[in-house]
Amino acid sequence: MSDATIAAVSSPRGKGGVAVLRVSGPEAFSVCERIFAPRSKRKLRECPLRYQIYGDILSSDGKSVLDDGLATCFAAPHSFTGEDVVELSCHGGEVVTAMVLESLLESGASLAAPGEFSRRALMNGKLSLTAAEGIADLLDAKTKDAALLSSKTVRGKLSEEIGRLSEMLLAASASLWAYLDYPEEDLQSLSDEELVFSLEAIRDRCALLVKSFQMGRAIQSGISSAIVGKPNVGKSSFFNRLLGEERAIVTAIPGTTRDVLEYPLHVGRVLLNLSDTAGVRRDFSDAVEQIGIDRALAAVRESELVFALFDSSRPFEKEDELVLEALSSLEEGSVVIPVLTKKDLPQRLELDRLPFSPEEMLSFEKDAEDLSELAFRVEKVFISDEFALREGRIITNVRQKTNLSKCIILLEEAIDQVLTGCKDLASLSLESALAVLLEVDGKSAGEKILDEVFSRFCIGK
Amino acid sequence: MSDATIAAVSSPRGKGGVAVLRVSGPEAFSVCERIFAPRSKRKLRECPLRYQIYGDILSSDGKSVLDDGLATCFAAPHSFTGEDVVELSCHGGEVVTAMVLESLLESGASLAAPGEFSRRALMNGKLSLTAAEGIADLLDAKTKDAALLSSKTVRGKLSEEIGRLSEMLLAASASLWAYLDYPEEDLQSLSDEELVFSLEAIRDRCALLVKSFQMGRAIQSGISSAIVGKPNVGKSSFFNRLLGEERAIVTAIPGTTRDVLEYPLHVGRVLLNLSDTAGVRRDFSDAVEQIGIDRALAAVRESELVFALFDSSRPFEKEDELVLEALSSLEEGSVVIPVLTKKDLPQRLELDRLPFSPEEMLSFEKDAEDLSELAFRVEKVFISDEFALREGRIITNVRQKTNLSKCIILLEEAIDQVLTGCKDLASLSLESALAVLLEVDGKSAGEKILDEVFSRFCIGK
Repeated sequence: MSDATIAAVSSPRGKGGVAVLRVSGPEAFSVCERIFAPRSKRKLRECPLRYQIYGDILSSDGKSVLDDGLATCFAAPHSFTGEDVVELSCHGGEVVTAMVLESLLESGASLAAPGEFSRRALMNGKLSLTAAEGIADLLDAKTKDAALLSSKTVRGKLSEEIGRLSEMLLAASASLWAYLDYPEEDLQSLSDEELVFSLEAIRDRCALLVKSFQMGRAIQSGISSAIVGKPNVGKSSFFNRLLGEERAIVTAIPGTTRDVLEYPLHVGRVLLNLSDTAGVRRDFSDAVEQIGIDRALAAVRESELVFALFDSSRPFEKEDELVLEALSSLEEGSVVIPVLTKKDLPQRLELDRLPFSPEEMLSFEKDAEDLSELAFRVEKVFISDEFALREGRIITNVRQKTNLSKCIILLEEAIDQVLTGCKDLASLSLESALAVLLEVDGKSAGEKILDEVFSRFCIGK
Repeated sequence: MSDATIAAVSSPRGKGGVAVLRVSGPEAFSVCERIFAPRSKRKLRECPLRYQIYGDILSSDGKSVLDDGLATCFAAPHSFTGEDVVELSCHGGEVVTAMVLESLLESGASLAAPGEFSRRALMNGKLSLTAAEGIADLLDAKTKDAALLSSKTVRGKLSEEIGRLSEMLLAASASLWAYLDYPEEDLQSLSDEELVFSLEAIRDRCALLVKSFQMGRAIQSGISSAIVGKPNVGKSSFFNRLLGEERAIVTAIPGTTRDVLEYPLHVGRVLLNLSDTAGVRRDFSDAVEQIGIDRALAAVRESELVFALFDSSRPFEKEDELVLEALSSLEEGSVVIPVLTKKDLPQRLELDRLPFSPEEMLSFEKDAEDLSELAFRVEKVFISDEFALREGRIITNVRQKTNLSKCIILLEEAIDQVLTGCKDLASLSLESALAVLLEVDGKSAGEKILDEVFSRFCIGK
């Protein structure tokens, strides 16, 4: 940990009424004293803490006044970073803000790296690792649900759950460790059955968190999804109808993992990244559409949610067979929502050729007004645990999921080992399980993990 | 003046570590108490003023926590607007910031109009009109010099000068008014000569301010300028060399008043809006170039600074005559800087055909490294009063200039009237002069002027 004093603009870039700059580190007060002259003529350091002091912000040579503004001092450890911190507000012009930053840097501060303030907060025990990740999610949040979820994580809801699980695991393991260290003294407070029961409870709660990852992504970053169906089944109408529901987000973005355009849109509270496979939005000649189908089928395999469209006005055809084949090649855990189109025309499709029960099938007519049934269905799949959501017991990134999955495996090994009498092996497994669990909240996380986490941040946070 | 409580995001739009929201008006404390729960469990209103309070920011129904953040209360009149003000800081994500604003609006605040906070500050005597205009300039400032200049205006440097002039004018007039009101009591403290001397002094200082307008624009918004010269004189090299000096600004913008592209660039401390008349940057066939010349000559007439290029390696030609003609049609106050090109070739131009002294002429060779002579010349014209610049006695907008020019005319009328014995007319002239002078700083400015000034602001200031 460097003990440099760092500075950065913490408010967004651009023009606004007010900009905020943050300075943190052992020299924060003396750096700011050089460039901030309180109108009261008192020294900054002698002003009350957490109090907004009005004054002039100076160039580093002290010769010109750059702006007037407010300074607030926070003394270690009672600050965001846990270090001495000064926050300066100046007028929010781009150039004047840059000049104030330059003056800070010339007066002894170093430019903060992305996420460095939060990283110092973590190092000083002011912020847990999951809360730090929550901040990055919160700043990136594109929807209210995403912002509310990450805000819970910032306020430590996930961190609390990890802490509870760690304590449960520690308590369960302690009994075993005591027995192994002092076998003659009979310190084991739990019977083997009780120990196994306790470890299973911890495992199940870890599994709930792992399961919450899908919900986390459904809210935070979006579920990859696609529409599949034979030519003229109504893919284009369906696609446009979904997009039409979504007035906020209209720009196609290149798919992150697939060579197709993706449209982020909401269906209920679920964020979908709907891929425009085979250009379902446009009209195609049959020839081109055929190529389209092949491409669509390939993309479908990588989707987590597939809307499979079937034309109820035409008999089951070979192309429908192709669609079913594609669905059967989906990865485990992917979800298919079958949709019957053109129900206003006479029914000619043999429903028994489809591997779906009638209740499973949604109806969609062109110019459909009401998508609430669809939204209900999608939410039911992806927002599976309202209680966990309300409590903020949701993970949203792969790092957290990987550690929790490892923890589950180690717990299952330990359970087996206890049941087969290999208690010394079980104690090692539990030690490893505790390490990976603590690591979820950065409690024993190596530098490498931290580098990855904080590189997602913007400068000034 | 409405007494609504207003709220807006004051920091720039976009993603950052921190966002600042401002609430001002009689209900500021009660609105914020509804949605801000200090962690200390104290009521916001009972927390010390100007002190940053940590707490939770709530939705308007109080049911969900949107974010955690800081609140600072400022009690009227000791705030930016002079009203009760609360400033909230939350995490700087776009969505979370919007949610906090929405919660404020749902709790009784109205969305602030652009500039409304500053307007209230003006109404409550916390800010002068020129300082308010300075804030808009400061937020817009594109260069350091522009930011430093407008920062001086924000801190009241121009306002002080207007105040001093108003007091001088009031003192001079008072003597005359006393005489007219009570002629028999001989209250006139100044002789006519002294009165005239005093009014001339005020007039001259007003004239200095009017003159500073050019300097103000040279720093703040830029001087319209053009390059003129016959085909192959080296316009394109000269143009590119000027642009090459300027690494920060490379984008052409449509000229505000002319149908040509303008390139903002710095020459020394002067911001030029150099027009690309006749596409001097591109190669043209002679025919097209000829059309180009005609267009260039038209644009030249509207420029305040013209670089007139003459080829020293070719004899004086008819086209040079056309260039001289164009220069003679420039508006009064426009400046010509004559430039001799191709001095590395044998001299064939008859310099006595040009209406410039040899010392006036700059030399320019292709690939010239050093533009300091040029910068010196341009600065000498446009940064004509370093003292006024340092003191911030610079006006930057037409409204200020118009009022000061009116004031000068009225003062000159008054001087004439005193000298011709029409003292009652002189007293009316001085009254009007004082009114237009005070109006520069909004002291008796009508609503209409204010509307114009504050519509330039962004929301949240």
